[in-house]
Amino acid sequence: MQVVVLAGGVGGSRFVAGVRAAYPQAELTVIVNTADDITLHGLRICPDLDTMTYTLGRAIDADRGWGRSGESWRVKDELAAYGLEPSWFGLGDLDLATHLVRTQLLAAGLPLSEVTRRVTARWLGHDPLLTLLPMTDDVVETEVAIGDTDSPGGRRWLHFQEYWVRLRAAPDALAVRRTGIEHAHPAPGVAEAIAGADLVLVAPSNPVVSIGPILEVPGIHAALRATPAPVLGFAGILGGAPVLGMAHRLLPAIGVAVDAAAVGRHYGARAADGVLDLWVMDSADAADAAGLEVDGLRVAVTGLMMSSPEATAEFLRLAVKALPGPS
Amino acid sequence: MQVVVLAGGVGGSRFVAGVRAAYPQAELTVIVNTADDITLHGLRICPDLDTMTYTLGRAIDADRGWGRSGESWRVKDELAAYGLEPSWFGLGDLDLATHLVRTQLLAAGLPLSEVTRRVTARWLGHDPLLTLLPMTDDVVETEVAIGDTDSPGGRRWLHFQEYWVRLRAAPDALAVRRTGIEHAHPAPGVAEAIAGADLVLVAPSNPVVSIGPILEVPGIHAALRATPAPVLGFAGILGGAPVLGMAHRLLPAIGVAVDAAAVGRHYGARAADGVLDLWVMDSADAADAAGLEVDGLRVAVTGLMMSSPEATAEFLRLAVKALPGPS
Repeated sequence: MQVVVLAGGVGGSRFVAGVRAAYPQAELTVIVNTADDITLHGLRICPDLDTMTYTLGRAIDADRGWGRSGESWRVKDELAAYGLEPSWFGLGDLDLATHLVRTQLLAAGLPLSEVTRRVTARWLGHDPLLTLLPMTDDVVETEVAIGDTDSPGGRRWLHFQEYWVRLRAAPDALAVRRTGIEHAHPAPGVAEAIAGADLVLVAPSNPVVSIGPILEVPGIHAALRATPAPVLGFAGILGGAPVLGMAHRLLPAIGVAVDAAAVGRHYGARAADGVLDLWVMDSADAADAAGLEVDGLRVAVTGLMMSSPEATAEFLRLAVKALPGPS
Repeated sequence: MQVVVLAGGVGGSRFVAGVRAAYPQAELTVIVNTADDITLHGLRICPDLDTMTYTLGRAIDADRGWGRSGESWRVKDELAAYGLEPSWFGLGDLDLATHLVRTQLLAAGLPLSEVTRRVTARWLGHDPLLTLLPMTDDVVETEVAIGDTDSPGGRRWLHFQEYWVRLRAAPDALAVRRTGIEHAHPAPGVAEAIAGADLVLVAPSNPVVSIGPILEVPGIHAALRATPAPVLGFAGILGGAPVLGMAHRLLPAIGVAVDAAAVGRHYGARAADGVLDLWVMDSADAADAAGLEVDGLRVAVTGLMMSSPEATAEFLRLAVKALPGPS
């Protein structure tokens, strides 16, 4: 069985751990958002790929949800002592080695997908059926506009990480754009994995900055619409609020309401122009399900709290059973 | 009073600490060898500049003689866990921050001399009369040939650091070459400092890989010959062996005997084609002094063990008194 997951970082990693628990024998390919990636201090940093790698490689700091367990911050403190900006990014000593390896391999001319294969080899060797793919080998970066009376047009564009980490998403996001997306290509294996899948899962990751960029890479949306596999999406908004992260700070910037039904409608039904065969919402949002069905999007309602990989596996199995046809 | 020192790393740093003790009120400019510099893991590393900076900035690991006190090796161990080569270079976590700062500033287009000014500002602020200058802003790298039956001509060229650190200078050095030296220019301020000096001191650093490269930068040799200041050289070979380091492994490769008199003859007297007005040798080598005087090189003999900055200051003052004329 071939399972493909589209995912971002922290929430996506927990979701994939549940997919692994539900389908331990499946060939599992995770297509990971790279539009959060950033170059800081000359180091190429891929937060979602690393969070996914460390989580599945059992090296994650479980309390923080990102970065390495047993992390230290000596280099970061030294950089700050030199006055080197920016100092707001959480650059741990162990994590920094990953960035150094990646930066050096990229500088040697390897594409990010090959770099990712080499970096993940250290962590995911216990699961040879698991493959992480960046959504693209091309550089795509999400930028967020915030209000700034000193800037032309009254708004200033920031790298997503600056908005998210430095400003903690405090200013209202007025708009979101993706630089480089129009010329990006799916990384090798991405379109093939979707086309050859038996099951495609859209993780309950941030619809604006995690799932959004993956769907915007030219060719991926079409691949999802064309695959013979059923495509299931999972809501990350439960009872009107994100379970993790700050999706509620970004959804308004793309004109989508902060509720699970609105996100499902945003992804859309394959029966119309969208990518989903089934949208899975939390029981807390059951009242909104009927309206979606009217719009042609099949909906399943269940508990979606990812309190453990087994809990996630449980709602995954329930969702798959809700698919129409011989499953 | 303007004092200029030409110096390498560990021994040069100790020497400069003694110069500071001897002339606490002087404007002191240290021209530092950069031909040991190397790029590893994408980081530009300047061992002699950093050793000098950390020593004079009181941040050096005194036992090792290089690197930061209180150093840790977490990033290095992680890089090794990824299998990233080379793993033989001593890349400490605190030290790595210095390399990251330097690499980033160089990548932004700043010349090494300006980068050095910014890096040393953190460490040398207590001594505003002290300036460290790289010998050049251009990339110069010392390479060492060792015997290798599998290589064309039976020899293989290695970066100096690989010969020194990885191989610990165990194979015989057959030859030494300097890539980039013929197109190098003295860094801004180097020629001016020499021309405006009241006293020029050649540290007892390695004649082949520390002082040699400085003298080979086009223009520096001529500046030393032209300066009105007396130029004093100090032997690093005491009683036929180097006090620090492994100069004895490299002198044969340039056809110079491992004794203090031979090194003095190699630098040469300004009265002939050399750079020295006075060559200062250790008492253990007094028997060789007469031969040098015959060759036109004035010699002073004293104890040269740099057991403390004050001990170094003491032999410095003695040497200056041995100069001819109104001093």
